[in-house]
Amino acid sequence: MFPAKKIQKLVGTRIQVEMKGEKFVLEGLLESVDDYLNLYLSSATEIVDGERRRMLGSVVLRGNNIVLITPLEE
Amino acid sequence: MFPAKKIQKLVGTRIQVEMKGEKFVLEGLLESVDDYLNLYLSSATEIVDGERRRMLGSVVLRGNNIVLITPLEE
Amino acid sequence: MFPAKKIQKLVGTRIQVEMKGEKFVLEGLLESVDDYLNLYLSSATEIVDGERRRMLGSVVLRGNNIVLITPLEE
Amino acid sequence: MFPAKKIQKLVGTRIQVEMKGEKFVLEGLLESVDDYLNLYLSSATEIVDGERRRMLGSVVLRGNNIVLITPLEE
Amino acid sequence: MFPAKKIQKLVGTRIQVEMKGEKFVLEGLLESVDDYLNLYLSSATEIVDGERRRMLGSVVLRGNNIVLITPLEE
Amino acid sequence: MFPAKKIQKLVGTRIQVEMKGEKFVLEGLLESVDDYLNLYLSSATEIVDGERRRMLGSVVLRGNNIVLITPLEE
Repeated sequence: MFPAKKIQKLVGTRIQVEMKGEKFVLEGLLESVDDYLNLYLSSATEIVDGERRRMLGSVVLRGNNIVLITPLEE
Repeated sequence: MFPAKKIQKLVGTRIQVEMKGEKFVLEGLLESVDDYLNLYLSSATEIVDGERRRMLGSVVLRGNNIVLITPLEE
Repeated sequence: MFPAKKIQKLVGTRIQVEMKGEKFVLEGLLESVDDYLNLYLSSATEIVDGERRRMLGSVVLRGNNIVLITPLEE
Repeated sequence: MFPAKKIQKLVGTRIQVEMKGEKFVLEGLLESVDDYLNLYLSSATEIVDGERRRMLGSVVLRGNNIVLITPLEE
Repeated sequence: MFPAKKIQKLVGTRIQVEMKGEKFVLEGLLESVDDYLNLYLSSATEIVDGERRRMLGSVVLRGNNIVLITPLEE
Repeated sequence: MFPAKKIQKLVGTRIQVEMKGEKFVLEGLLESVDDYLNLYLSSATEIVDGERRRMLGSVVLRGNNIVLITPLEE
Protein backbone atom coordinates (compact mmCIF):
# COMPACT_ATOMS: atom_id res chain seq x y z
CA MET A 1 0.00 0.00 0.00
CA PHE A 2 1.44 3.38 -1.04
CA PRO A 3 2.05 6.06 1.62
CA ALA A 4 -0.82 8.30 0.45
CA LYS A 5 -3.20 5.32 0.35
CA LYS A 6 -2.16 4.42 3.89
CA ILE A 7 -3.19 7.92 5.04
CA GLN A 8 -6.48 7.83 3.12
CA LYS A 9 -7.37 4.65 4.96
CA LEU A 10 -6.91 6.50 8.25
CA VAL A 11 -9.73 8.99 7.48
CA GLY A 12 -12.27 8.74 10.28
CA THR A 13 -9.72 7.58 12.86
CA ARG A 14 -7.48 9.42 15.30
CA ILE A 15 -3.91 10.12 14.25
CA GLN A 16 -0.83 11.81 15.65
CA VAL A 17 1.12 14.29 13.52
CA GLU A 18 4.57 15.80 13.97
CA MET A 19 5.03 19.15 12.26
CA LYS A 20 8.34 20.70 11.20
CA GLY A 21 9.71 23.24 13.65
CA GLU A 22 7.07 22.62 16.32
CA LYS A 23 7.75 21.35 19.81
CA PHE A 24 4.28 19.94 20.16
CA VAL A 25 2.69 16.96 18.49
CA LEU A 26 -0.91 17.14 17.27
CA GLU A 27 -3.60 14.56 17.85
CA GLY A 28 -6.93 14.67 16.11
CA LEU A 29 -9.61 12.93 14.12
CA LEU A 30 -8.58 12.82 10.46
CA GLU A 31 -11.45 14.33 8.47
CA SER A 32 -9.74 14.42 5.08
CA VAL A 33 -6.43 14.36 3.21
CA ASP A 34 -5.49 15.47 -0.31
CA ASP A 35 -2.71 14.60 -2.77
CA TYR A 36 -0.24 16.96 -1.06
CA LEU A 37 -0.91 15.29 2.28
CA ASN A 38 -2.61 18.47 3.51
CA LEU A 39 -4.67 17.25 6.46
CA TYR A 40 -7.96 18.44 7.92
CA LEU A 41 -8.33 17.35 11.56
CA SER A 42 -11.23 17.87 13.97
CA SER A 43 -11.03 17.75 17.78
CA ALA A 44 -7.32 18.48 17.52
CA THR A 45 -5.18 18.79 20.64
CA GLU A 46 -1.57 19.81 21.19
CA ILE A 47 0.52 17.22 23.02
CA VAL A 48 3.73 18.33 24.77
CA ASP A 49 5.92 15.69 26.45
CA GLY A 50 3.05 13.23 26.28
CA GLU A 51 0.55 15.55 28.03
CA ARG A 52 -2.52 17.08 26.43
CA ARG A 53 -2.30 20.87 26.44
CA ARG A 54 -4.29 23.22 24.28
CA MET A 55 -7.52 22.18 22.52
CA LEU A 56 -7.49 23.52 18.96
CA GLY A 57 -10.75 22.21 17.57
CA SER A 58 -10.56 21.90 13.79
CA VAL A 59 -7.29 22.64 12.04
CA VAL A 60 -5.80 22.39 8.56
CA LEU A 61 -2.17 21.29 8.32
CA ARG A 62 0.00 22.14 5.28
CA GLY A 63 1.34 18.86 3.88
CA ASN A 64 4.90 19.97 3.16
CA ASN A 65 5.43 20.87 6.82
CA ILE A 66 4.34 17.46 8.08
CA VAL A 67 7.24 15.28 9.16
CA LEU A 68 5.56 12.12 10.39
CA ILE A 69 2.06 10.67 10.71
CA THR A 70 1.25 7.85 13.14
CA PRO A 71 -2.09 5.99 13.40
CA LEU A 72 -3.47 5.84 16.97
CA GLU A 73 -6.05 3.12 16.50
CA GLU A 74 -4.10 0.24 15.03
CA MET B 1 -14.54 18.12 2.90
CA PHE B 2 -10.98 18.35 1.55
CA PRO B 3 -8.44 20.54 3.38
CA ALA B 4 -8.33 23.22 0.64
CA LYS B 5 -12.14 23.33 0.51
CA LYS B 6 -12.22 23.76 4.29
CA ILE B 7 -10.00 26.85 3.94
CA GLN B 8 -12.03 28.28 1.06
CA LYS B 9 -15.12 28.10 3.25
CA LEU B 10 -13.32 30.27 5.82
CA VAL B 11 -12.98 33.22 3.41
CA GLY B 12 -14.68 36.22 5.02
CA THR B 13 -14.07 34.97 8.56
CA ARG B 14 -11.23 35.47 11.05
CA ILE B 15 -8.55 32.77 11.21
CA GLN B 16 -5.36 32.10 13.11
CA VAL B 17 -2.22 31.01 11.25
CA GLU B 18 1.05 29.54 12.48
CA MET B 19 4.00 30.17 10.19
CA LYS B 20 7.19 28.10 10.03
CA GLY B 21 10.06 29.56 11.99
CA GLU B 22 8.05 32.37 13.55
CA LYS B 23 7.46 32.85 17.25
CA PHE B 24 4.27 34.78 16.68
CA VAL B 25 0.90 33.59 15.48
CA LEU B 26 -1.10 35.69 13.02
CA GLU B 27 -4.77 36.53 13.28
CA GLY B 28 -6.66 38.19 10.47
CA LEU B 29 -9.69 38.27 8.22
CA LEU B 30 -9.19 35.79 5.38
CA GLU B 31 -9.70 37.72 2.14
CA SER B 32 -8.64 34.96 -0.27
CA VAL B 33 -6.74 31.71 -0.69
CA ASP B 34 -5.33 29.97 -3.78
CA ASP B 35 -4.40 26.41 -4.71
CA TYR B 36 -1.02 26.65 -2.95
CA LEU B 37 -2.74 27.81 0.26
CA ASN B 38 -1.16 31.24 -0.17
CA LEU B 39 -3.35 33.45 2.03
CA TYR B 40 -4.32 37.10 1.79
CA LEU B 41 -5.39 38.48 5.17
CA SER B 42 -6.66 41.94 6.11
CA SER B 43 -6.60 43.49 9.60
CA ALA B 44 -3.81 41.10 10.52
CA THR B 45 -2.26 41.18 13.98
CA GLU B 46 0.70 39.37 15.50
CA ILE B 47 -0.10 37.38 18.62
CA VAL B 48 2.70 36.46 21.04
CA ASP B 49 1.90 34.30 24.07
CA GLY B 50 -1.78 35.00 23.59
CA GLU B 51 -1.39 38.80 23.54
CA ARG B 52 -1.99 41.07 20.55
CA ARG B 53 1.20 42.87 19.59
CA ARG B 54 1.88 44.52 16.27
CA MET B 55 -0.90 45.49 13.82
CA LEU B 56 0.16 44.51 10.30
CA GLY B 57 -2.86 45.55 8.25
CA SER B 58 -3.03 43.49 5.05
CA VAL B 59 -0.50 40.72 4.50
CA VAL B 60 0.15 37.92 2.03
CA LEU B 61 1.42 34.62 3.46
CA ARG B 62 3.34 32.11 1.32
CA GLY B 63 1.50 28.79 1.50
CA ASN B 64 4.48 26.47 1.85
CA ASN B 65 5.55 28.25 5.04
CA ILE B 66 2.19 27.85 6.71
CA VAL B 67 2.16 25.14 9.35
CA LEU B 68 -1.37 25.26 10.71
CA ILE B 69 -4.62 27.17 10.11
CA THR B 70 -7.34 27.40 12.77
CA PRO B 71 -10.81 28.94 12.30
CA LEU B 72 -11.72 31.50 15.00
CA GLU B 73 -15.46 31.71 14.41
CA GLU B 74 -16.62 28.11 14.62
CA MET C 1 -8.52 39.35 -4.99
CA PHE C 2 -6.24 36.28 -4.95
CA PRO C 3 -2.96 36.46 -3.01
CA ALA C 4 -0.77 36.51 -6.14
CA LYS C 5 -2.94 39.24 -7.68
CA LYS C 6 -2.61 41.27 -4.48
CA ILE C 7 1.19 41.13 -4.84
CA GLN C 8 1.11 42.00 -8.55
CA LYS C 9 -0.84 45.14 -7.69
CA LEU C 10 2.00 46.15 -5.36
CA VAL C 11 4.56 46.35 -8.21
CA GLY C 12 5.98 49.87 -8.25
CA THR C 13 5.39 50.41 -4.52
CA ARG C 14 7.49 49.76 -1.42
CA ILE C 15 6.92 46.53 0.47
CA GLN C 16 8.28 44.76 3.51
CA VAL C 17 9.24 41.09 3.31
CA GLU C 18 10.00 38.52 6.02
CA MET C 19 12.23 35.69 4.88
CA LYS C 20 12.46 32.25 6.49
CA GLY C 21 15.36 31.84 8.88
CA GLU C 22 16.45 35.48 8.72
CA LYS C 23 16.52 37.86 11.66
CA PHE C 24 16.18 40.89 9.45
CA VAL C 25 13.21 42.12 7.48
CA LEU C 26 13.70 43.52 3.98
CA GLU C 27 12.21 46.71 2.63
CA GLY C 28 12.39 47.66 -1.02
CA LEU C 29 10.64 48.81 -4.15
CA LEU C 30 8.89 45.87 -5.79
CA GLU C 31 10.09 45.75 -9.40
CA SER C 32 8.48 42.45 -10.37
CA VAL C 33 6.98 39.19 -9.14
CA ASP C 34 6.38 35.85 -10.85
CA ASP C 35 4.04 32.90 -10.33
CA TYR C 36 6.26 31.40 -7.61
CA LEU C 37 6.21 34.72 -5.72
CA ASN C 38 9.91 35.17 -6.50
CA LEU C 39 10.42 38.91 -5.96
CA TYR C 40 12.79 41.40 -7.56
CA LEU C 41 13.30 44.46 -5.33
CA SER C 42 15.36 47.58 -5.94
CA SER C 43 16.68 49.97 -3.27
CA ALA C 44 16.41 47.15 -0.76
CA THR C 45 17.45 47.66 2.86
CA GLU C 46 17.76 45.28 5.80
CA ILE C 47 15.72 46.27 8.84
CA VAL C 48 16.68 44.88 12.26
CA ASP C 49 14.50 45.73 15.27
CA GLY C 50 12.89 48.54 13.30
CA GLU C 51 16.19 50.19 12.33
CA ARG C 52 17.63 50.42 8.82
CA ARG C 53 20.95 48.61 8.62
CA ARG C 54 22.63 47.45 5.46
CA MET C 55 21.73 48.83 2.00
CA LEU C 56 21.52 45.94 -0.47
CA GLY C 57 20.55 47.71 -3.68
CA SER C 58 18.75 45.30 -6.00
CA VAL C 59 18.00 41.79 -4.78
CA VAL C 60 16.10 38.73 -5.95
CA LEU C 61 14.20 36.76 -3.28
CA ARG C 62 13.29 33.08 -3.77
CA GLY C 63 9.53 32.77 -3.35
CA ASN C 64 9.43 29.57 -1.30
CA ASN C 65 11.54 31.20 1.41
CA ILE C 66 9.24 34.18 1.79
CA VAL C 67 7.07 34.00 4.88
CA LEU C 68 5.10 37.23 4.77
CA ILE C 69 4.71 40.27 2.51
CA THR C 70 3.31 43.58 3.81
CA PRO C 71 2.49 46.67 1.69
CA LEU C 72 4.05 49.89 3.03
CA GLU C 73 2.00 52.40 1.08
CA GLU C 74 -1.57 51.45 1.84
CA MET D 1 20.52 3.12 -10.82
CA PHE D 2 18.56 6.34 -10.18
CA PRO D 3 18.00 7.47 -6.57
CA ALA D 4 14.25 6.66 -6.60
CA LYS D 5 14.94 3.23 -8.10
CA LYS D 6 17.51 2.59 -5.36
CA ILE D 7 14.82 3.26 -2.73
CA GLN D 8 12.22 1.10 -4.50
CA LYS D 9 14.64 -1.81 -4.39
CA LEU D 10 14.81 -1.41 -0.60
CA VAL D 11 11.08 -2.17 -0.15
CA GLY D 12 10.79 -5.16 2.18
CA THR D 13 14.08 -4.41 3.96
CA ARG D 14 14.99 -2.34 7.01
CA ILE D 15 16.22 1.20 6.44
CA GLN D 16 17.34 4.17 8.49
CA VAL D 17 15.94 7.63 7.80
CA GLU D 18 17.06 11.07 8.94
CA MET D 19 14.30 13.66 8.99
CA LYS D 20 14.76 17.43 8.82
CA GLY D 21 14.66 19.17 12.16
CA GLU D 22 14.51 15.97 14.21
CA LYS D 23 17.12 14.86 16.72
CA PHE D 24 16.20 11.22 16.34
CA VAL D 25 16.79 8.86 13.46
CA LEU D 26 14.07 6.41 12.42
CA GLU D 27 14.55 2.73 11.70
CA GLY D 28 11.86 0.59 10.18
CA LEU D 29 10.78 -1.92 7.56
CA LEU D 30 10.10 -0.09 4.29
CA GLU D 31 6.59 -1.07 3.19
CA SER D 32 6.30 1.34 0.26
CA VAL D 33 7.58 4.49 -1.38
CA ASP D 34 6.06 6.84 -3.98
CA ASP D 35 7.43 9.32 -6.52
CA TYR D 36 7.82 12.05 -3.89
CA LEU D 37 9.88 9.69 -1.70
CA ASN D 38 7.03 9.65 0.83
CA LEU D 39 7.78 6.50 2.86
CA TYR D 40 5.52 4.06 4.68
CA LEU D 41 7.41 2.15 7.37
CA SER D 42 6.23 -0.58 9.71
CA SER D 43 7.85 -1.57 13.03
CA ALA D 44 9.42 1.87 13.18
CA THR D 45 11.61 2.86 16.13
CA GLU D 46 13.22 6.15 17.12
CA ILE D 47 16.99 5.97 17.58
CA VAL D 48 18.74 8.64 19.68
CA ASP D 49 22.54 8.56 19.95
CA GLY D 50 22.55 5.01 18.63
CA GLU D 51 20.04 3.72 21.22
CA ARG D 52 16.53 2.49 20.49
CA ARG D 53 13.97 4.65 22.26
CA ARG D 54 10.30 4.87 21.42
CA MET D 55 8.47 2.21 19.33
CA LEU D 56 6.23 3.96 16.81
CA GLY D 57 4.72 1.02 14.93
CA SER D 58 3.65 2.09 11.45
CA VAL D 59 4.42 5.61 10.28
CA VAL D 60 4.19 7.66 7.11
CA LEU D 61 7.05 10.10 6.42
CA ARG D 62 6.61 13.14 4.15
CA GLY D 63 9.23 12.92 1.41
CA ASN D 64 10.28 16.57 1.31
CA ASN D 65 11.30 16.42 4.97
CA ILE D 66 13.56 13.41 4.49
CA VAL D 67 17.24 14.31 4.46
CA LEU D 68 18.97 10.96 4.06
CA ILE D 69 18.04 7.29 3.63
CA THR D 70 20.48 4.48 4.46
CA PRO D 71 19.94 0.74 3.78
CA LEU D 72 20.53 -1.46 6.86
CA GLU D 73 20.78 -4.83 5.15
CA GLU D 74 23.44 -4.33 2.51
CA MET E 1 12.00 42.49 -15.73
CA PHE E 2 10.89 39.26 -14.03
CA PRO E 3 13.01 37.88 -11.15
CA ALA E 4 14.31 34.89 -13.16
CA LYS E 5 15.19 37.15 -16.09
CA LYS E 6 17.07 39.44 -13.70
CA ILE E 7 19.20 36.47 -12.60
CA GLN E 8 19.81 35.27 -16.15
CA LYS E 9 21.19 38.70 -16.98
CA LEU E 10 23.72 38.26 -14.18
CA VAL E 11 25.35 35.22 -15.84
CA GLY E 12 29.03 36.01 -16.33
CA THR E 13 29.16 38.42 -13.40
CA ARG E 14 29.93 38.00 -9.69
CA ILE E 15 27.01 37.61 -7.31
CA GLN E 16 26.45 37.11 -3.61
CA VAL E 17 24.04 34.42 -2.40
CA GLU E 18 22.48 33.79 1.01
CA MET E 19 21.50 30.19 1.62
CA LYS E 20 18.88 28.96 4.10
CA GLY E 21 20.30 27.77 7.38
CA GLU E 22 23.89 28.80 6.61
CA LYS E 23 25.87 31.36 8.58
CA PHE E 24 28.10 32.15 5.63
CA VAL E 25 27.30 34.02 2.46
CA LEU E 26 28.67 32.79 -0.88
CA GLU E 27 30.34 34.90 -3.52
CA GLY E 28 31.14 33.58 -6.96
CA LEU E 29 30.99 33.99 -10.71
CA LEU E 30 27.55 32.96 -11.96
CA GLU E 31 28.12 30.37 -14.68
CA SER E 32 24.49 29.37 -15.20
CA VAL E 33 20.99 29.32 -13.72
CA ASP E 34 17.93 27.22 -14.53
CA ASP E 35 14.16 27.62 -14.08
CA TYR E 36 14.32 26.49 -10.43
CA LEU E 37 16.98 29.11 -9.70
CA ASN E 38 19.53 26.33 -9.19
CA LEU E 39 22.85 28.15 -9.58
CA TYR E 40 26.23 27.01 -10.85
CA LEU E 41 29.04 29.25 -9.55
CA SER E 42 32.77 29.13 -10.23
CA SER E 43 35.52 30.65 -8.05
CA ALA E 44 33.11 30.54 -5.12
CA THR E 45 34.20 31.73 -1.67
CA GLU E 46 32.52 31.62 1.72
CA ILE E 47 32.14 35.01 3.39
CA VAL E 48 31.65 35.16 7.17
CA ASP E 49 31.07 38.57 8.82
CA GLY E 50 32.33 40.28 5.69
CA GLU E 51 35.64 38.32 5.56
CA ARG E 52 36.61 35.81 2.91
CA ARG E 53 37.12 32.37 4.43
CA ARG E 54 37.14 29.10 2.56
CA MET E 55 37.67 28.86 -1.22
CA LEU E 56 35.18 26.39 -2.66
CA GLY E 57 35.98 26.53 -6.36
CA SER E 58 32.93 25.49 -8.39
CA VAL E 59 29.67 24.76 -6.58
CA VAL E 60 26.07 23.99 -7.45
CA LEU E 61 23.40 25.56 -5.22
CA ARG E 62 19.90 24.07 -4.93
CA GLY E 63 17.42 26.81 -5.85
CA ASN E 64 14.82 26.16 -3.16
CA ASN E 65 17.41 26.74 -0.44
CA ILE E 66 18.45 30.12 -1.79
CA VAL E 67 17.07 33.02 0.21
CA LEU E 68 18.51 36.07 -1.51
CA ILE E 69 20.69 36.89 -4.52
CA THR E 70 22.54 40.22 -4.83
CA PRO E 71 24.52 41.44 -7.88
CA LEU E 72 28.06 42.59 -7.03
CA GLU E 73 28.85 44.46 -10.23
CA GLU E 74 26.00 46.88 -10.57
CA MET F 1 26.53 24.38 -18.69
CA PHE F 2 23.28 24.29 -16.67
CA PRO F 3 23.47 23.37 -12.95
CA ALA F 4 21.80 19.96 -13.41
CA LYS F 5 24.11 19.14 -16.32
CA LYS F 6 27.10 20.08 -14.17
CA ILE F 7 25.98 17.52 -11.57
CA GLN F 8 25.32 14.81 -14.17
CA LYS F 9 28.89 15.21 -15.38
CA LEU F 10 30.09 14.48 -11.84
CA VAL F 11 28.58 10.95 -11.83
CA GLY F 12 31.40 8.49 -11.17
CA THR F 13 33.47 11.02 -9.21
CA ARG F 14 33.65 11.95 -5.53
CA ILE F 15 31.64 14.95 -4.37
CA GLN F 16 30.94 16.81 -1.15
CA VAL F 17 27.38 17.69 -0.18
CA GLU F 18 25.99 20.07 2.44
CA MET F 19 22.51 19.18 3.66
CA LYS F 20 20.02 21.57 5.25
CA GLY F 21 19.96 21.45 9.02
CA GLU F 22 22.91 19.07 9.35
CA LYS F 23 26.17 19.88 11.07
CA PHE F 24 28.10 17.34 9.04
CA VAL F 25 29.08 17.41 5.41
CA LEU F 26 28.84 14.24 3.31
CA GLU F 27 31.49 12.91 0.97
CA GLY F 28 30.86 10.06 -1.40
CA LEU F 29 31.04 8.64 -4.90
CA LEU F 30 28.15 9.99 -6.96
CA GLU F 31 26.36 6.97 -8.42
CA SER F 32 23.39 8.81 -9.92
CA VAL F 33 21.29 11.98 -9.87
CA ASP F 34 17.76 12.70 -11.11
CA ASP F 35 15.85 15.82 -12.19
CA TYR F 36 15.10 16.81 -8.58
CA LEU F 37 18.80 16.60 -7.72
CA ASN F 38 18.10 13.57 -5.54
CA LEU F 39 21.51 11.95 -5.19
CA TYR F 40 22.60 8.35 -4.74
CA LEU F 41 26.08 8.10 -3.21
CA SER F 42 28.20 5.07 -2.43
CA SER F 43 31.09 4.90 0.06
CA ALA F 44 29.61 7.92 1.82
CA THR F 45 31.27 9.35 4.92
CA GLU F 46 30.24 12.08 7.35
CA ILE F 47 32.76 14.89 7.73
CA VAL F 48 32.67 17.08 10.85
CA ASP F 49 35.08 20.03 11.11
CA GLY F 50 37.17 18.56 8.30
CA GLU F 51 37.55 15.12 9.96
CA ARG F 52 36.06 11.88 8.68
CA ARG F 53 33.64 10.43 11.21
CA ARG F 54 31.00 7.85 10.50
CA MET F 55 31.05 5.59 7.41
CA LEU F 56 27.54 5.42 5.95
CA GLY F 57 28.07 3.20 2.91
CA SER F 58 25.40 3.90 0.31
CA VAL F 59 22.90 6.68 0.93
CA VAL F 60 20.13 8.46 -0.93
CA LEU F 61 19.83 12.22 -0.37
CA ARG F 62 16.56 14.10 -0.98
CA GLY F 63 17.28 16.88 -3.47
CA ASN F 64 15.24 19.66 -1.86
CA ASN F 65 17.29 19.36 1.33
CA ILE F 66 20.61 19.74 -0.45
CA VAL F 67 22.13 23.17 -0.02
CA LEU F 68 25.43 22.94 -1.90
CA ILE F 69 27.34 20.39 -3.99
CA THR F 70 31.10 20.66 -4.54
CA PRO F 71 33.21 18.46 -6.88
CA LEU F 72 36.27 16.91 -5.18
CA GLU F 73 38.21 15.84 -8.25
CA GLU F 74 38.45 19.00 -10.30
